[in-house]
Amino acid sequence: MFTQLKERVLAANLLLPYYQLVTFTWGNVSEIDRDNGVIAIKPSGVPYDKLTTEDIVIIDLDGKKIEGKLNPSSDTQTHIELYKTFEQIGGVIHTHSRNATIWAQAGLDIPALGTTHADYFYGDIPCTRLLTPTEITNNYELNTGKVIIEEFNKRNIDFMAIPSVLVSGHGPFGWGKNADDAVHNAVVLEEIAAMALATRNLNIGIKIQQELLDKHYYRKHGKNAYYGQT
Amino acid sequence: MFTQLKERVLAANLLLPYYQLVTFTWGNVSEIDRDNGVIAIKPSGVPYDKLTTEDIVIIDLDGKKIEGKLNPSSDTQTHIELYKTFEQIGGVIHTHSRNATIWAQAGLDIPALGTTHADYFYGDIPCTRLLTPTEITNNYELNTGKVIIEEFNKRNIDFMAIPSVLVSGHGPFGWGKNADDAVHNAVVLEEIAAMALATRNLNIGIKIQQELLDKHYYRKHGKNAYYGQT
Amino acid sequence: MFTQLKERVLAANLLLPYYQLVTFTWGNVSEIDRDNGVIAIKPSGVPYDKLTTEDIVIIDLDGKKIEGKLNPSSDTQTHIELYKTFEQIGGVIHTHSRNATIWAQAGLDIPALGTTHADYFYGDIPCTRLLTPTEITNNYELNTGKVIIEEFNKRNIDFMAIPSVLVSGHGPFGWGKNADDAVHNAVVLEEIAAMALATRNLNIGIKIQQELLDKHYYRKHGKNAYYGQT
Amino acid sequence: MFTQLKERVLAANLLLPYYQLVTFTWGNVSEIDRDNGVIAIKPSGVPYDKLTTEDIVIIDLDGKKIEGKLNPSSDTQTHIELYKTFEQIGGVIHTHSRNATIWAQAGLDIPALGTTHADYFYGDIPCTRLLTPTEITNNYELNTGKVIIEEFNKRNIDFMAIPSVLVSGHGPFGWGKNADDAVHNAVVLEEIAAMALATRNLNIGIKIQQELLDKHYYRKHGKNAYYGQT
Repeated sequence: MFTQLKERVLAANLLLPYYQLVTFTWGNVSEIDRDNGVIAIKPSGVPYDKLTTEDIVIIDLDGKKIEGKLNPSSDTQTHIELYKTFEQIGGVIHTHSRNATIWAQAGLDIPALGTTHADYFYGDIPCTRLLTPTEITNNYELNTGKVIIEEFNKRNIDFMAIPSVLVSGHGPFGWGKNADDAVHNAVVLEEIAAMALATRNLNIGIKIQQELLDKHYYRKHGKNAYYGQT
Repeated sequence: MFTQLKERVLAANLLLPYYQLVTFTWGNVSEIDRDNGVIAIKPSGVPYDKLTTEDIVIIDLDGKKIEGKLNPSSDTQTHIELYKTFEQIGGVIHTHSRNATIWAQAGLDIPALGTTHADYFYGDIPCTRLLTPTEITNNYELNTGKVIIEEFNKRNIDFMAIPSVLVSGHGPFGWGKNADDAVHNAVVLEEIAAMALATRNLNIGIKIQQELLDKHYYRKHGKNAYYGQT
Repeated sequence: MFTQLKERVLAANLLLPYYQLVTFTWGNVSEIDRDNGVIAIKPSGVPYDKLTTEDIVIIDLDGKKIEGKLNPSSDTQTHIELYKTFEQIGGVIHTHSRNATIWAQAGLDIPALGTTHADYFYGDIPCTRLLTPTEITNNYELNTGKVIIEEFNKRNIDFMAIPSVLVSGHGPFGWGKNADDAVHNAVVLEEIAAMALATRNLNIGIKIQQELLDKHYYRKHGKNAYYGQT
Repeated sequence: MFTQLKERVLAANLLLPYYQLVTFTWGNVSEIDRDNGVIAIKPSGVPYDKLTTEDIVIIDLDGKKIEGKLNPSSDTQTHIELYKTFEQIGGVIHTHSRNATIWAQAGLDIPALGTTHADYFYGDIPCTRLLTPTEITNNYELNTGKVIIEEFNKRNIDFMAIPSVLVSGHGPFGWGKNADDAVHNAVVLEEIAAMALATRNLNIGIKIQQELLDKHYYRKHGKNAYYGQT
């Protein structure tokens, strides 16, 4: 069962080494089937070049395993929390991609500095607050999801317009319409994170003009978009 | 019709991933046939590995589509404006290549710091002023072309001697004798942008000697050039 | 004799160019067979693409050659000293991988800045003191081992919880359960060294929370670990 | 004639793209046959993937062409000057490899910061003074050679112990026992240039201990060397 879902999730996970977003097994992608209330996710600690469709784990929204022999990703509770709250998303991704992780370790938002950023993210990529010692000790992965959602709510950020976040001291999480789209956004995040590091070195404090951010974001998103073929 | 023109433009666009100048579809190359008053350009948002000769769009200098089923690049009006004003150029390129984009985001010229730069660019690579909110809202892509031309005129720069520009907050545009030459210049731009970032970190404010800039530029360009086989 | 040991050591050494940890012959991996009291190690100065199983040198813990025609790595005495003192380790590695070497040249510990680090190393990666002129002149490679051990003892670091070290002015050494595991740790070290360089530029002085370090380290190590499939 | 010499020089030039030392045609390698008083050198401006043995140009020490249809490298006079003065060298190389060029553009020596450097270079890699306007205008390439030699003489540097130099505002030149050895040294130079950039950012002013420099250099060079198999 859920073969097509598992195949899509397998394919999305195989894009992680292809786009050089991971070292060893440091990343995972999932996709939700909202009609059936199930999520397909990478098994924990399995190298990408060994992954098969059967290895992909099917769980429900309580984290109960529905199908598969392997343990799901240790980050599974974070994925579930995001799916529960961000009801329009279809795929979730977590990596330790180098440049995004650097910003997360520094505990800083990735500022919107140019149109490359604006083409995909309508504003700064937020970095969460630190988790409290209690949040770390008990239900750490669940609380990682909660602190992401708290940050979006606190700042009143539209999670569909900024489909990535940095978890302070940890690394990036992201999402999209489906697993493939989540990976796409993670590739963009990594590139703009690299550009932002060096831009800040050249000209600290510079920001993109609001009008240019608007122009590029809405050139590709929403009802007046005119980029691409549709 | 225009098959050879479209094949050259296809080949030039395929060089973008080959030279690692692009992520996803973030770049486009065009070439003009001035005798026939037409431009061949990449279609908007189509991945390079899916591009075929038939996908290349033929437009006239008013932006009217002459041939092709797809929408031309969203940056088409910028290309046209450059072809109209810079009458000696035959190819135009736009990318978000990492290091050149970093300088554009910082809103800074790439200073001429060494002979690698001088072999191709006779002076600093200019960064344009910011577009005004009105220029962004109305005819953005056309105004991007106009602000490039304004910068070259204001500074009295010979566009054939400095075949690249940074659009502030956005990224590089460039040109050349034809589409292939425009790509060649974009590869050089990306390399000197990377070198300049680190050179500035080591020794801020250093510049190339004017005599060395002259020597290297004119060793490869103009009637006394003696580099190469011709 | 020792064919399987030599094959494992050959395979581990071939991972050095695969993971881009080496230029030319700048790295070596060994593995110990504690039951037989022998170590298999790369021969000195032999390119990886020329290495065969027979080229791997077998020595005893006095450094006496037991099997093989070639000279063992010039760093052999450092390997031996580590095996003698760190009795639980099964493999040792030395490289000049770029980012770890940068920290070693700077004479600085790699601070624990995020969960990528915490997943593998329970705290800062220590940088040794400088060797004295006498320690350099006489028995240099042996003294390199001794100064590593001194640093772990002085700071009371568990060598199994922090399986890497930087030798000041030189570069990284590391270890693991066997040769393959030592290489694995060296790949992680290189990645966190790169991340730490840029994190420090963004936010000098930031450190990972102790509770987050604990959580991630013990999520993957020890009796309560729950990462992976076992 | 000189077929083997030309084949060695072809092979050495093909290593330039292999080791990622060049963009387009930005590098050249030569080798001298001192018995016959001839030098084999890359032709000017020819892409490496088009080079054949017959394309390699044979010149004498006056720069007169002995064999070949193509123009020799525009840097030929620099090569000749180095061969004439540094009588023990057999190969010369020039590239614009990124990190070495960064130091040259900054007009700074590459300081000896670690054993990676010390294994190949017995001290800082010198950066020349700037050429005077007259030296640039008349016999530029010859004067580039002269200013290199002046720097080694002025500082009393043994050119065999430091087989590379940075020409201020330009880039690296280097040499070795033969063409292949010159390329080898250029690869090392590029790696230590990259390491030195980041080491300086972490800990400006740090230097390698003299005793460690001695130890590593003489571990691989001279009559007491014990690295490798001979």
